[in-house]
Amino acid sequence: MQLPDVVRIPLPEGRDYEIRIGAGLLGQSASWAGLPRASAAVIVTNETVAPLYAERLREQLAAVYARVDVVALPDGESFKDWPTLNRVFDHLLQEALDRKTVLFALGGGVIGDMTGFAAATYMRGVPFVQVPTTLLAQVDSSVGGKTAINHPLGKNMLGAFYQPVRVLADLDTLDTLPDRELRAGLAEIIKYGPIADAAFLDWIEDNLAGLLSRDKALLAYAVRRSCEIKADVVGQDEREQGLRAILNFGHTIGHAIEAGLGYGEWLHGEAVACGMVLAADLSCRLGFVPQAFVERLRSLIQRAGLPVQPPQLGVERCLQLMRVDKKAEAGDIRFVVIEGVGCAGLRPVPDDLIAAVLRDHGAG
Amino acid sequence: MQLPDVVRIPLPEGRDYEIRIGAGLLGQSASWAGLPRASAAVIVTNETVAPLYAERLREQLAAVYARVDVVALPDGESFKDWPTLNRVFDHLLQEALDRKTVLFALGGGVIGDMTGFAAATYMRGVPFVQVPTTLLAQVDSSVGGKTAINHPLGKNMLGAFYQPVRVLADLDTLDTLPDRELRAGLAEIIKYGPIADAAFLDWIEDNLAGLLSRDKALLAYAVRRSCEIKADVVGQDEREQGLRAILNFGHTIGHAIEAGLGYGEWLHGEAVACGMVLAADLSCRLGFVPQAFVERLRSLIQRAGLPVQPPQLGVERCLQLMRVDKKAEAGDIRFVVIEGVGCAGLRPVPDDLIAAVLRDHGAG
Repeated sequence: MQLPDVVRIPLPEGRDYEIRIGAGLLGQSASWAGLPRASAAVIVTNETVAPLYAERLREQLAAVYARVDVVALPDGESFKDWPTLNRVFDHLLQEALDRKTVLFALGGGVIGDMTGFAAATYMRGVPFVQVPTTLLAQVDSSVGGKTAINHPLGKNMLGAFYQPVRVLADLDTLDTLPDRELRAGLAEIIKYGPIADAAFLDWIEDNLAGLLSRDKALLAYAVRRSCEIKADVVGQDEREQGLRAILNFGHTIGHAIEAGLGYGEWLHGEAVACGMVLAADLSCRLGFVPQAFVERLRSLIQRAGLPVQPPQLGVERCLQLMRVDKKAEAGDIRFVVIEGVGCAGLRPVPDDLIAAVLRDHGAG
Repeated sequence: MQLPDVVRIPLPEGRDYEIRIGAGLLGQSASWAGLPRASAAVIVTNETVAPLYAERLREQLAAVYARVDVVALPDGESFKDWPTLNRVFDHLLQEALDRKTVLFALGGGVIGDMTGFAAATYMRGVPFVQVPTTLLAQVDSSVGGKTAINHPLGKNMLGAFYQPVRVLADLDTLDTLPDRELRAGLAEIIKYGPIADAAFLDWIEDNLAGLLSRDKALLAYAVRRSCEIKADVVGQDEREQGLRAILNFGHTIGHAIEAGLGYGEWLHGEAVACGMVLAADLSCRLGFVPQAFVERLRSLIQRAGLPVQPPQLGVERCLQLMRVDKKAEAGDIRFVVIEGVGCAGLRPVPDDLIAAVLRDHGAG
């Protein structure tokens, strides 16, 4: 048995926790050692992931908890809403499960965000464990304690900062991931280069083909390095008072695309990929990076099989959607701009400049 | 202008805050000094309180915030639910209000709990101020950061620990409080005696008539002493890992009565009053306090015009409702028992003993 890679998120008040990364972790009893004691555990998953991994996880947890339930929600971003979340609450309350019950989020970003929000709010907080089964969740959404559901008027608008007690990224679960979702996960991996680590961007460019063909050693490194960068940022700014916002590079336009098309039309990673191209162009027009950097990022994203051109939503509609972005302030839309490869910052950007970029990239 | 009484809640990470208590605070500009800056404030209130105080508060806040909105929800415990809460989110998002927006909870416990939960979850957290206008909210629910909504299967089952940035208890707002609600507030004041302060229990007994006739000096002392006790407990145990549970004296049976009759049938304070009588009897049967203490508490509660006999819900139904209580663990119902006047603890109590008490008091 190979020992997992471990990345630690440093947090105050005894809330720090481990991200364990490795192949086969789901089947190893060591994965569950040291979790909070409780009389019951509930695996929250979706109808796609449940037939693949829920039984394996249930068997493992049955050695730790007297009772293990499985709640399988419908799959997809369009179900990241209150009525679907309420199915988790209904189950917990119908079964009279107490406030020591441990929730396990088995799935991708939607399941992780929803289970985390359920854990944050059920009886004002129960412990939860992230078991991400998509690349995107393993490198980004399962780490750092952002939990949320969507509102018809905006993505992730209702949520909480609430940390898991552990993250367990079993690389073997990526074997069953559709290609489209693998590529969407690569978008968030690519993100870490421009915002924090120029050498990692070089590495991704050099190893893209291997990552796309699911070379497990390469994936292991990409997941670990991504988690290290995220852990470093979250450890410095858990509640996004400042620095943490850089993790949202590409997300301002990305969220507008997702909301504008209807959740689930484009995958989150696809929307972020396209958003990064436009945000890089904005950074260039603001004088921070040369045009060559925009082209370099566009080329990498294109090679990863991800979209570089936004859908034709109309410029005004895009701006309107961006004004409800969580980073907006007093009506100003704020963007994560690249200020040099490996260095990013959050800045208000005038509407007319955003409109020009949207138009020039075909969103108008 | 008389300076307000100030009670401070000590909390880590810069989250400590002031409870200001006094007559006329709503009309004093000093009340708003030092609150977080923002471009907008939203007053969340209900349709009963809005015509009485919303305009006065709006005018005050207009000197501080460029924009001040009012959202008035329907009044009552039966509206402490997700669809009603969502009206607040709809407003915030339709108006594209950003994550610095400050929410003001103007009303009783239901408005305070709901506004607090909205503040805890809108964009993962915005600041909020409690402006309690009922005695119950001033002495209990507005203080300490417990926020929640009800679920059809249990009271306050969905919520968060999320602290306000200030509590402003204007005693003048009690002038418009119906007698029934004044008495319900007295129930939570009485509570602080048995659990924490024998001398305060004596004081309440001596001054009950004056409190019932709304003597402002007596009310001011009762509110301040209640807040001091609560601040002390919450400062030691914000997230109810242990000690804080004593604040739930009378609430295990109280919550069952509220849920069993349908929310709003009995006021929360009425249900708690009755719950305290039964919990005192339990404490007596467990050998902690003499029968004389049970009679003493029953007599005080009766003099306050509060119910001492539970509705006939049936013993089994009561037990079932108590098993989903947040303090229950692994199926055991746990009670706050009085271990001596001014001293309480949380203990599991066998079902048959609870059943006997319920039966003997007429719930069966």
